[in-house]
Amino acid sequence: MTRQIILGMHLGNGYGALPGAWRAPGVDPTNYVSFDAKVRHGQAAERGKFHFLFLPDGPSLVADIENEPPHFNLDVMLTLAAVARETDRIGLIATGSTTFNAPYNLARQFKALDLMSHGRAGWNAVTSSGEDVAANYGARLPSSAERYGRAHETIQVVQALWGSWGREAWVHDQATGAFANADEIAPINLRGQFVGSRGPLYIPPSEQGQPVIVHAGGSPNGHELAGRFANAVIGAAFSIEDARAQRTAFRDAAERAGRDPDEIKYFPGLMTTIASDRRTALDRRIALTQRTFPQRAAYLMQILGLRTEAIRLDEPLSAAQLAAARPSPQDPRSAHALKIAREGWSLTDVLAHGVIDYHPVIVGPAIEAADHMQAWFEAGAADGFWISPDIYDDGIDAFVDGVVPILQERGLFHQDYAGSTLRDHLGAPAQYGVDPRAMR
Amino acid sequence: MTRQIILGMHLGNGYGALPGAWRAPGVDPTNYVSFDAKVRHGQAAERGKFHFLFLPDGPSLVADIENEPPHFNLDVMLTLAAVARETDRIGLIATGSTTFNAPYNLARQFKALDLMSHGRAGWNAVTSSGEDVAANYGARLPSSAERYGRAHETIQVVQALWGSWGREAWVHDQATGAFANADEIAPINLRGQFVGSRGPLYIPPSEQGQPVIVHAGGSPNGHELAGRFANAVIGAAFSIEDARAQRTAFRDAAERAGRDPDEIKYFPGLMTTIASDRRTALDRRIALTQRTFPQRAAYLMQILGLRTEAIRLDEPLSAAQLAAARPSPQDPRSAHALKIAREGWSLTDVLAHGVIDYHPVIVGPAIEAADHMQAWFEAGAADGFWISPDIYDDGIDAFVDGVVPILQERGLFHQDYAGSTLRDHLGAPAQYGVDPRAMR
Repeated sequence: MTRQIILGMHLGNGYGALPGAWRAPGVDPTNYVSFDAKVRHGQAAERGKFHFLFLPDGPSLVADIENEPPHFNLDVMLTLAAVARETDRIGLIATGSTTFNAPYNLARQFKALDLMSHGRAGWNAVTSSGEDVAANYGARLPSSAERYGRAHETIQVVQALWGSWGREAWVHDQATGAFANADEIAPINLRGQFVGSRGPLYIPPSEQGQPVIVHAGGSPNGHELAGRFANAVIGAAFSIEDARAQRTAFRDAAERAGRDPDEIKYFPGLMTTIASDRRTALDRRIALTQRTFPQRAAYLMQILGLRTEAIRLDEPLSAAQLAAARPSPQDPRSAHALKIAREGWSLTDVLAHGVIDYHPVIVGPAIEAADHMQAWFEAGAADGFWISPDIYDDGIDAFVDGVVPILQERGLFHQDYAGSTLRDHLGAPAQYGVDPRAMR
Repeated sequence: MTRQIILGMHLGNGYGALPGAWRAPGVDPTNYVSFDAKVRHGQAAERGKFHFLFLPDGPSLVADIENEPPHFNLDVMLTLAAVARETDRIGLIATGSTTFNAPYNLARQFKALDLMSHGRAGWNAVTSSGEDVAANYGARLPSSAERYGRAHETIQVVQALWGSWGREAWVHDQATGAFANADEIAPINLRGQFVGSRGPLYIPPSEQGQPVIVHAGGSPNGHELAGRFANAVIGAAFSIEDARAQRTAFRDAAERAGRDPDEIKYFPGLMTTIASDRRTALDRRIALTQRTFPQRAAYLMQILGLRTEAIRLDEPLSAAQLAAARPSPQDPRSAHALKIAREGWSLTDVLAHGVIDYHPVIVGPAIEAADHMQAWFEAGAADGFWISPDIYDDGIDAFVDGVVPILQERGLFHQDYAGSTLRDHLGAPAQYGVDPRAMR
């Protein structure tokens, strides 16, 4: 089978990836607490045959709350429970911290979601960083070594619990009265340096056996963790070169762990504002983000090595400024920002291109998004992408109706779901319990 | 307003309260993993105007798994998320351990459920007991003093987090761009002996402000905890006298905590097998439980002070046995068991009356259940009941179609939901954050 692009849809706070999405015309400002909205957005992504939804999480209130909504869902598991009930095929990946959750609680809730969704659950297993999160748990943030040590143990304990109810254990034979075969349900008796559990868990296998493991994070510790356990990586990269290097690092880590590198898929992020033409798209983005432009303009000048006095947002950089500009090696977005500035856009328009946003940004016609993804995909920089639309309410539809058909015409994206589980969608191998290769 | 009976429906493993429910004709043996089934059962209870669903939980595999299903749901929160989306009025009470959960995780998941259900969530805050549960968390069971100390702290931290996003904080004014009023969102900075959290939580108030606190457990420690925090108690009592004593103990504890005793409702359990006549009901119950009868018969003989040799399940106790029988003061079910035995039933039929089950059992026409509840209610032994039907699939309907109309005719049960929140259903007072009376 020809290799094709895998797509995930970012679902955060109910509004969209841009800070002003909650104020946009037609957006219900109560979407933050609306599970109807989350379901509607999940269904919109499923209409576009997205392989998965991705819900980031960080149990802390981090936002300029006077002006912007929190970034995350009220609760990622309850959100996905609602979406699971009202979708059929799309994969459901939630973030769950290995730092501040007991393995037993993670194991049962993710596996219950996996049963509930008929094999569509994925666990983005990440370490928590930030003293604000730790403080919510009445704790100090452990060292990086301890956090990653605990993460390795937690994933193994969780997977062992998932496998503790044997594949064939659940007989439920009404005629004979045999409910389960106790011989195939065994304690795991795992005890590491940081966590442990006796088990067994009381949940039978799902249609995909057990949830898929996902990781997010690009440090050497992250490579090592993902290389052992993950079938997918939620990444962030600003250039083909950077993405290819990251993808290679994860693939190499998988190989070091004794795995086929194709078992781990790398997905850099992509933010989108899709419109009929660049100007319309820029204006949409300006409306959603311009409150942040004074601050961002100052930062932009800084990474171009320019003085921040007398910023004129409504004018292009002058010839003298462009001549003096030197992209900072400290910020990987600098060179692209200068390239856009050289095209003669006003500073507002330069910023509206998303040149200092969290991911590469497409601001324009659907074909530009398709071209971007094709280029990265064919350069070996990505196995797919996770998409952050500006506003969920119509931004998902714009992608689904604009970008998806182009990718499909080019043979780069599936016409429909081939399988029914997340494991199918990702091409992840069958697994039940802990992968023995990860226990070395 | 006349005081009326409040009813809760027990929802456990998807089958019913009796061990053989999973094998009964018409029952799908995969209900254990079926969220469709849980939703259907919740809807059936809502059709009967039940005030709440009650989901027990104990994170451990405790069952004669070869022959019987586990007692609990795969995951109580995901189950209630599904039910919340597909019901409108019924309250949703899940059990969550204060012993092995971080307050921050409890706070956000229960409050998210409260938003999701538009103010119908309740938290049955209990301490875990049992080394099997502790072992699943890689721990030993703390002492009772420590468990209850931690429970007190956990409930206060959770409620403080619920109140940390001020009632009026969420402005979400699209015109002005004010998302929230940061002055009304404050850290809680609580640190006790066992748990702590900085906060704030990032979730606005629900239609009932915040979830209702429920407790289950009848020890002096339980009275104290419930007296301070709970608006409802899930109880267990075998006689009017016992139930009245328990109810009084909880009401007294509430008064000691400075509360109106009517703020705490006491609900003893009731198991039901409703059928047109006693014989039909007994036969239904025999089919669902007779596998356990040899063992239960031996226990029954023991608590009646009789020798266990030569048990004849198909015969009544002999005149000599009845004359020699002495109800054990160690088991509160003994006297009632002897009363039934004296009616001349075979030993099998005596057991089928549920004389040594977990709660009082109604095995017969609907009017017997109505009479039982009326007698207890009017004797001040209960504010209502939580009902455990033998089989959910048709046992809930039998109760709804048989017992509910009788209670309604007698003016003992509401004709329809008067309010929309669990707080309304229970007559619980408004509360947001920690009750200052509980902080003394």
